[in-house]
Amino acid sequence: MQIINNPNRSDWSEILKRPTQTVDDIEATVNQIFEEVSQKGDEAIKKYTSYFDGISLDSNIVTTEEIQTSIQNVPEKLQNAIKLAKQNIEAFHKAQKTSKVEIETTNGVQCWQEKRPIQKVGLYIPGGTAPLFSTVLMLAVPAQLAGCKDIVLCSPPNKTGHLAPEILFAAQLCGVTKIIKVGGIQAIAGLTLGTATIPQVYKIFGPGNQFVTVAKQLATKYGVAIDMPAGPSELLVVADASGNASYIASDLLSQAEHGTDSQVILVSTSNDLINSVSEEIEKQLKVLPRKTIAEKAIANSKLIYVENDDIALELINAYGPEHFIICAKNEVLYVNGINNAGSVFIGDYTPESAGDYASGTNHTLPTNGFSKAYSGVNLDSFLKSMTFQKISKEGILNIGETIELMAEAEGLQAHKNAVTIRLKDLK
Amino acid sequence: MQIINNPNRSDWSEILKRPTQTVDDIEATVNQIFEEVSQKGDEAIKKYTSYFDGISLDSNIVTTEEIQTSIQNVPEKLQNAIKLAKQNIEAFHKAQKTSKVEIETTNGVQCWQEKRPIQKVGLYIPGGTAPLFSTVLMLAVPAQLAGCKDIVLCSPPNKTGHLAPEILFAAQLCGVTKIIKVGGIQAIAGLTLGTATIPQVYKIFGPGNQFVTVAKQLATKYGVAIDMPAGPSELLVVADASGNASYIASDLLSQAEHGTDSQVILVSTSNDLINSVSEEIEKQLKVLPRKTIAEKAIANSKLIYVENDDIALELINAYGPEHFIICAKNEVLYVNGINNAGSVFIGDYTPESAGDYASGTNHTLPTNGFSKAYSGVNLDSFLKSMTFQKISKEGILNIGETIELMAEAEGLQAHKNAVTIRLKDLK
Repeated sequence: MQIINNPNRSDWSEILKRPTQTVDDIEATVNQIFEEVSQKGDEAIKKYTSYFDGISLDSNIVTTEEIQTSIQNVPEKLQNAIKLAKQNIEAFHKAQKTSKVEIETTNGVQCWQEKRPIQKVGLYIPGGTAPLFSTVLMLAVPAQLAGCKDIVLCSPPNKTGHLAPEILFAAQLCGVTKIIKVGGIQAIAGLTLGTATIPQVYKIFGPGNQFVTVAKQLATKYGVAIDMPAGPSELLVVADASGNASYIASDLLSQAEHGTDSQVILVSTSNDLINSVSEEIEKQLKVLPRKTIAEKAIANSKLIYVENDDIALELINAYGPEHFIICAKNEVLYVNGINNAGSVFIGDYTPESAGDYASGTNHTLPTNGFSKAYSGVNLDSFLKSMTFQKISKEGILNIGETIELMAEAEGLQAHKNAVTIRLKDLK
Repeated sequence: MQIINNPNRSDWSEILKRPTQTVDDIEATVNQIFEEVSQKGDEAIKKYTSYFDGISLDSNIVTTEEIQTSIQNVPEKLQNAIKLAKQNIEAFHKAQKTSKVEIETTNGVQCWQEKRPIQKVGLYIPGGTAPLFSTVLMLAVPAQLAGCKDIVLCSPPNKTGHLAPEILFAAQLCGVTKIIKVGGIQAIAGLTLGTATIPQVYKIFGPGNQFVTVAKQLATKYGVAIDMPAGPSELLVVADASGNASYIASDLLSQAEHGTDSQVILVSTSNDLINSVSEEIEKQLKVLPRKTIAEKAIANSKLIYVENDDIALELINAYGPEHFIICAKNEVLYVNGINNAGSVFIGDYTPESAGDYASGTNHTLPTNGFSKAYSGVNLDSFLKSMTFQKISKEGILNIGETIELMAEAEGLQAHKNAVTIRLKDLK
């Protein structure tokens, strides 16, 4: 691990640089698969499922029977854990419901804003070595609360042509309306373009590797919205001398095990703490099953000493971490002053993994500095706000001349006419 | 105008098709300009301003003196109109402020959501024949209300190297912090990459031609957020026999004058009304200054007869209009049932131009069917929601085992460890 001592402000941007990915070579592949899915529909889906996932499926739709049989394999203890996590996620996202905003801006001019559900959403759940069923909760719970009508889940089949029982359990628990065994670029292409078996949706959510990321970016060109651009996961911990080195080390490692390109950073006002955390990391790393991955991520990571909390805060805002843990006496300074972060974890007993699973907050968060402009997934991600206005005769008499003047000054005479023709009748 | 009588549901998607644009040939140009701005900064900006806008500027920053001198040219009546419009827009967007959402999901697990301003935003205001100062209000008012720190406005200079006085007046009225004379692709490239004179921002807002649209799409690849994808403006009016044909014709024409690719649609349950509107359009069209533009847009537009309100509503939701006017006795059915629309205008005295200028709602709206997934610009567009959690000893004892079970089932041992190490100390 790299220890950086009191860096110059001019070096911050270099120090805080994320590992970059080049995607140009992927784009051609993604374009081609979209093209094929657009022309051949399910035939193309089948071809690429066979090619990438090594399995040929008669049907990619998961049936009710398949769900019922499969979820019996989920141990009861895990079922209960998933249910408790769901409860918390539901409670927190339900609390985010807003009511109609209504105001009479001028006498007779009634304006209001209402949020209505996105009717058709697609949830992408990656495959891989372990089933990421927690992401099913994070996406399907708010989708259902928002009132989305079609909630379509896509996830790549394993070598035997199935989805993990835990994914199916979470999906049926949270009201997913259709589950399809398709992954990668072809899944995103299917949700974007629609095929006989995959419904076309209006917005696609969920994490994925760089192929999925590029495919989601392409989906936006076809007019389909996405939750946010993705990137490798990251964690920044700020801690002063009061921090618990072994807790902090465990948090840094929990993020580091995600992937070799994960980035973990410790910012501290204490050199002693930096040294203790560094030692603790070495110790805890040894016994991890995903040691090889975590080791590589840790090698790219940084322990940064700064002189005081104010400099630390400024540096953290310049980075904009996805996950941000605060273990410092002056936690209020950081809580109030953090502008750019996805989710914030406060105090010694708030590990980042709590937010990944069960505290109730969402774990689909902006990474790669996107927290400067993007929210993490929340209830509003599944809604869109629409505005309404109803103007009475009095109202148009009150604001009519204003509209006429402005429209004329913008050279839009027909805009003006639409008011004039009404005012004439009323005057 | 095309009159379509009681179309088959299977023909809807063909009938409702928008005029398509191909952008592939523009992409190369946009990529090249981004590349040059990235390498040469202001030198490239200057080159393209000279090339596209036909003017070579010593400095592209608008000075305070320039603003003060220029805005004296805005007639007082227009100044007052702009101020009244600003008041209404401010009132409606201020009403959209939400408060902190806080909840204890499990005993000892405190979660909250707070919205914080996007620190740096860029507002793009197109040039062209007339100054679109109303868009300055629509973007700068909510940016200032949200608390954005840097509000940078870019707009192309005219042939004499200036911006329209009305744009400068609106900008200083609404707290824009920096005004730069730069337009088109090079403006978006500058805001995305930053140059010596143009600050790099986190999110770019505002309309533009297809060059600007493609440039904004490219900006997202560089990690800069955008308000929404753009497209030609559109209006759909639904009216029954009670509708006022001349009002409706004036509304359809107000949208048609925007551009030859604008789309206007009337859906009606009355053939008589369709005929009267058609006649009224011909009559009103003759005297419009932007007749040539409106005529072309009207040629592509459609008057659609359907049998009843339910079918009308379904068809309208399938289209997802940017602007939606309701002139029907059963307006409640449409107000409650509309799922996909940018902004809704209700009743005979609510012309669409009211929302363009002065009712208080925002006129930056999702077009091209994007209302199915996107909100129009609103206060939240300038904020991002962040989540926070603080877990007590009791809290981690309550949810710790749940996290351990789920992390283990996902094969993420280090995630589990971060909890285990804390639970050990507490038990």
